[in-house]
Amino acid sequence: MKALVLVETGKLEIQDYYSNHILGPDDVEIKINTVGICGSDVHYFTHGRIGPFVVNSPMVLGHEASGTVIAKGENVNHLNIGDRVCMEPGIPNMNSSQTMAGIYNLDPEVRFWATPPIDGCLRDSVIHPAAFTFKLPDNVSFEEGALVEPLAIGMQSATKANIKPGDIGLVFGAGPIGIITALCALAGGCSDVIICDIFDEKLNVANKYPGLHPINSNNSEELKRKVEELTSKEGVNVLFECSGAAAVIKKVTQHVAPGGTIVLVGMPIDPVPVDIVSAQAKEITFKTIFRYANMYPRTIRLLAAKKLNVGPLISARYKFKDSIEAFERAAKGLGSDVKIILEME
Amino acid sequence: MKALVLVETGKLEIQDYYSNHILGPDDVEIKINTVGICGSDVHYFTHGRIGPFVVNSPMVLGHEASGTVIAKGENVNHLNIGDRVCMEPGIPNMNSSQTMAGIYNLDPEVRFWATPPIDGCLRDSVIHPAAFTFKLPDNVSFEEGALVEPLAIGMQSATKANIKPGDIGLVFGAGPIGIITALCALAGGCSDVIICDIFDEKLNVANKYPGLHPINSNNSEELKRKVEELTSKEGVNVLFECSGAAAVIKKVTQHVAPGGTIVLVGMPIDPVPVDIVSAQAKEITFKTIFRYANMYPRTIRLLAAKKLNVGPLISARYKFKDSIEAFERAAKGLGSDVKIILEME
Amino acid sequence: MKALVLVETGKLEIQDYYSNHILGPDDVEIKINTVGICGSDVHYFTHGRIGPFVVNSPMVLGHEASGTVIAKGENVNHLNIGDRVCMEPGIPNMNSSQTMAGIYNLDPEVRFWATPPIDGCLRDSVIHPAAFTFKLPDNVSFEEGALVEPLAIGMQSATKANIKPGDIGLVFGAGPIGIITALCALAGGCSDVIICDIFDEKLNVANKYPGLHPINSNNSEELKRKVEELTSKEGVNVLFECSGAAAVIKKVTQHVAPGGTIVLVGMPIDPVPVDIVSAQAKEITFKTIFRYANMYPRTIRLLAAKKLNVGPLISARYKFKDSIEAFERAAKGLGSDVKIILEME
Amino acid sequence: MKALVLVETGKLEIQDYYSNHILGPDDVEIKINTVGICGSDVHYFTHGRIGPFVVNSPMVLGHEASGTVIAKGENVNHLNIGDRVCMEPGIPNMNSSQTMAGIYNLDPEVRFWATPPIDGCLRDSVIHPAAFTFKLPDNVSFEEGALVEPLAIGMQSATKANIKPGDIGLVFGAGPIGIITALCALAGGCSDVIICDIFDEKLNVANKYPGLHPINSNNSEELKRKVEELTSKEGVNVLFECSGAAAVIKKVTQHVAPGGTIVLVGMPIDPVPVDIVSAQAKEITFKTIFRYANMYPRTIRLLAAKKLNVGPLISARYKFKDSIEAFERAAKGLGSDVKIILEME
Repeated sequence: MKALVLVETGKLEIQDYYSNHILGPDDVEIKINTVGICGSDVHYFTHGRIGPFVVNSPMVLGHEASGTVIAKGENVNHLNIGDRVCMEPGIPNMNSSQTMAGIYNLDPEVRFWATPPIDGCLRDSVIHPAAFTFKLPDNVSFEEGALVEPLAIGMQSATKANIKPGDIGLVFGAGPIGIITALCALAGGCSDVIICDIFDEKLNVANKYPGLHPINSNNSEELKRKVEELTSKEGVNVLFECSGAAAVIKKVTQHVAPGGTIVLVGMPIDPVPVDIVSAQAKEITFKTIFRYANMYPRTIRLLAAKKLNVGPLISARYKFKDSIEAFERAAKGLGSDVKIILEME
Repeated sequence: MKALVLVETGKLEIQDYYSNHILGPDDVEIKINTVGICGSDVHYFTHGRIGPFVVNSPMVLGHEASGTVIAKGENVNHLNIGDRVCMEPGIPNMNSSQTMAGIYNLDPEVRFWATPPIDGCLRDSVIHPAAFTFKLPDNVSFEEGALVEPLAIGMQSATKANIKPGDIGLVFGAGPIGIITALCALAGGCSDVIICDIFDEKLNVANKYPGLHPINSNNSEELKRKVEELTSKEGVNVLFECSGAAAVIKKVTQHVAPGGTIVLVGMPIDPVPVDIVSAQAKEITFKTIFRYANMYPRTIRLLAAKKLNVGPLISARYKFKDSIEAFERAAKGLGSDVKIILEME
Repeated sequence: MKALVLVETGKLEIQDYYSNHILGPDDVEIKINTVGICGSDVHYFTHGRIGPFVVNSPMVLGHEASGTVIAKGENVNHLNIGDRVCMEPGIPNMNSSQTMAGIYNLDPEVRFWATPPIDGCLRDSVIHPAAFTFKLPDNVSFEEGALVEPLAIGMQSATKANIKPGDIGLVFGAGPIGIITALCALAGGCSDVIICDIFDEKLNVANKYPGLHPINSNNSEELKRKVEELTSKEGVNVLFECSGAAAVIKKVTQHVAPGGTIVLVGMPIDPVPVDIVSAQAKEITFKTIFRYANMYPRTIRLLAAKKLNVGPLISARYKFKDSIEAFERAAKGLGSDVKIILEME
Repeated sequence: MKALVLVETGKLEIQDYYSNHILGPDDVEIKINTVGICGSDVHYFTHGRIGPFVVNSPMVLGHEASGTVIAKGENVNHLNIGDRVCMEPGIPNMNSSQTMAGIYNLDPEVRFWATPPIDGCLRDSVIHPAAFTFKLPDNVSFEEGALVEPLAIGMQSATKANIKPGDIGLVFGAGPIGIITALCALAGGCSDVIICDIFDEKLNVANKYPGLHPINSNNSEELKRKVEELTSKEGVNVLFECSGAAAVIKKVTQHVAPGGTIVLVGMPIDPVPVDIVSAQAKEITFKTIFRYANMYPRTIRLLAAKKLNVGPLISARYKFKDSIEAFERAAKGLGSDVKIILEME
């Protein structure tokens, strides 16, 4: 089969690819249909590493994928050949104490597509555990299926935020994860979500969604006014920090109501100053998230119900044969680009 | 002033009314604009009692109301004369241990409009604690304001259900509270809500809402099929029992997923059989609700955001002078009538 | 090897036993040291069935066990040969959605020792998944290790009750599970736990524990007085219903504080009447439990810390060769017998 | 009456004192018996301010107090003249949205004893709202009653940590609040609590309590070893940061298990660096606390049940006439001094 291989930093090739992975009794084999390009794929392409994860040998990229089941193991009951599916890219040790506690995303032994040295899914087919493969309803497209992966991150945040119906949300950072998180917060019960960024191009995408209130963070007076208007001056109930910016994090408690929750989604490389005393005065709870667990089925349900709409997030579509061109565009990091999609043949 | 007085069981009169209630420093006075008729108002009219609460002397009816502030006490800062408002009808002892714990609805000393011997709000004006009076945004009508009271019951249920984004809901009973609860469950993050009743007229109202799936309970096969379709055969995450019917309660665990939640909203007069062992096999949690606490602000926000739509619930509007006629219609209990509204002059 | 086999209802034999279970890469083999007799073992002995589970062919009894690791599979890292251990008797499908969500006890496919047709552990050795095998610290005896299983049920109840430090608990039913639940509630943060039964012999066992307040349920005035004294007349925060008696369940909301929690542990065979309206007036939450998940490590820690003391619960010890005699005594159901222990040779 | 007045920074005097506070219908008057000296009292004495709270005019010190009811208002039912009581020192606006939500400690309008410009309780008597005055059982001494205030801070932390039975706790900082928090964590269900400090004198006090494991933080190897031993190498479930030290906070995620909780109790003056990415990898939740709400009754219950033992915390007792000497000793900040007690005459 063919695969998109990161040969070394900055060098991508479509190569012939051979996998010695054998279909086990609990596995399915999936012909890949659609793959989304994630910021982490791009970062490995441009930098060759993310923190401790270093690309030391050629690696197939891609972890946001949908496709069709073409084979299944003998124990697999809930999937059939021909089913349209999407796949969770991280596989834990099923016997770890984290997995048994329902937080398999926190198992230190998780193997995750396109995280060195594990090959990703930008190839013709993959063998994958059926327990991490999810059937798509007829009214959910392959493209939506591929986007379940980034949506699941927003869903993990919205779920851990314990949103109550009619809460007001505030999101800092309007990149792909920021917008997705805002959409999940709306779908999860927020009546309104304010979303801030310093780049107007990004806010323009957010502006396509009813219920989202984009505000340029440089306009701090407008932000203050909007929070006061929507919350009767009490502050927002839930805040999602998706910028990772030290300047944002330092003042992150400012617009939150007493008893409110902040979900830390953005990943600042180094330790950053947090104003603990201001958080204590409001007894703010900080949640943190790492990928997701048990989020695929509920994400698919919200797509099927049309309560999550990914249309405005898709900025461009490329054929697999043009995937290097697609990565080169993604590497430019255009403010108006949210998600670039690759279609396998 | 004028008031609608329940003189005795079955006998309503519009009478001159005098209140010796004096505006205190923490109170506001409100000119009433709109009042919804609740099933409990009708029940006092037709039966003269609800459980231990007996109408022993003439009592003003009505507890779902909106209006305009016409006077305020010296300590009141968050409201001004001329503000359009709605009012929470139950006032606890502010010093009780329940109130201090945030569950003021459970204070045994709560005084509630139109619950004997407390007069209701079907009169020209009321004096009310400002802490239980809430400003309506410009885009929320008086009619919507009056309906915040019944909506708050649905919001209490949806909030206590701890809905996660993308949960599937199931409501038994499509009366006013059943439909309202289903709408709040949708607004609160459910992707889909199935709603059941044995009367098709009631389901016809539910059918006007996208996201609600009305099914006649007599068609148990269709219900089973729909639950399996929406939940990949796992069962619903949250079930709201709004029928109060013993036959429903006996089998209420049937369609619930392992680990799911049942909110008991309907009020069966006598103890009813519950299949505890079947609940244990799924570790089902049962929540119960009693009115609401701290639900008005978040209900108003969802109305302002148009995530709650009460239009299809309003079955008829009457002028205050015709309110006896309105009560007589309400007493007929037509399946197609959800909410009848009275407009003060 | 030898095993205690339930040949048919009422007929036990120590027989030669052969298992064709092969040590897998994730398994350990354990030489059994100590086994506790559970009410369910006795019930299969005397009745041949529990609900839908019928003993249709000879079955080895026993599921409360400790022992020593004598062999291990190649993937097993956290255990070594010679380790003293205890074992969780229920093994789920590791790929089920319940297991992935951390509620593996609710997986419908769980295979549980001494639940037909699965053989139990009253035999010389067992092969068991290492993930469900837990090392005992030096200061936890084999006898305590065997009792981790019933303790885990009390721990599941105490954990799901969300006890806050200084809560007051009330337990109905002073059989083995009732007393164990009361002890776990004390260890879990209750300042005091009232425990009720109609048999004084059972209450005499409870009386050996500081912090437990035994009261004969027939003395309803004393119960009322004690609840009022300990709770400033507000009612208990958490109630554990361990009797399974319809008469208790019908009035179970009576002594609970507004906002309190009732954990339904006892298993009434048929649906029993519940006074839902009285529960609603206090917004009581009902939790239900089914065995336990993820409770072994924390139970072992409380035993090691001497915050759980099982000494007064052990009523008699028998050698394995006398195990039929032990079962005959257990079948008498003496009020003063809590737990009978079998020692393998 | 007499009162201990902070005339200006560093200058205390026992003065004649007159209060124009009149007994209201919901108030009680209390003759003060015992008052504990808190670090904040000492800080006002030595520095004249804490953050934004500046002593601009003479102020009575003291907020940890117990005494006897000597008069009561007409609405007060749950207290009687002669009752031995302790008092919550912070009084919110009873009509604020925070109070109605059960988080009255977060009401920005709280008036708190001995926080400028509010006079404290180091005087012969006080008039206080009955709702914030709590009866002491016969077996709880005045001294224990006075210590309910600092204990309530530990109880707020232990309650917000959502401790499950058998959790392992870790406390950084062995000052009065650190030790109290550790004791509340033990009483609240932890099987063991490790407590760290760099001063051995402080650890010597902790060492008097079974269940506490004092370790000098400079011995990082011993800490690591102890965490691994108690948690099977998984890390602690709950960590209480009571040091406020930037160096501790920077590495605070280090010994916490995946999915664990950190309660931030210590108050670093300036924003301090937090390693967010390391917290995310474990999805750690950070709770923050500000004083306490609804903690007095449960603290008193644990004292009555002897599950909280304050004996080893009382370092010295002084008569009120010697209270200036007591403050001078407290100002020395001896490592072995935890709590100094003043006895009124």
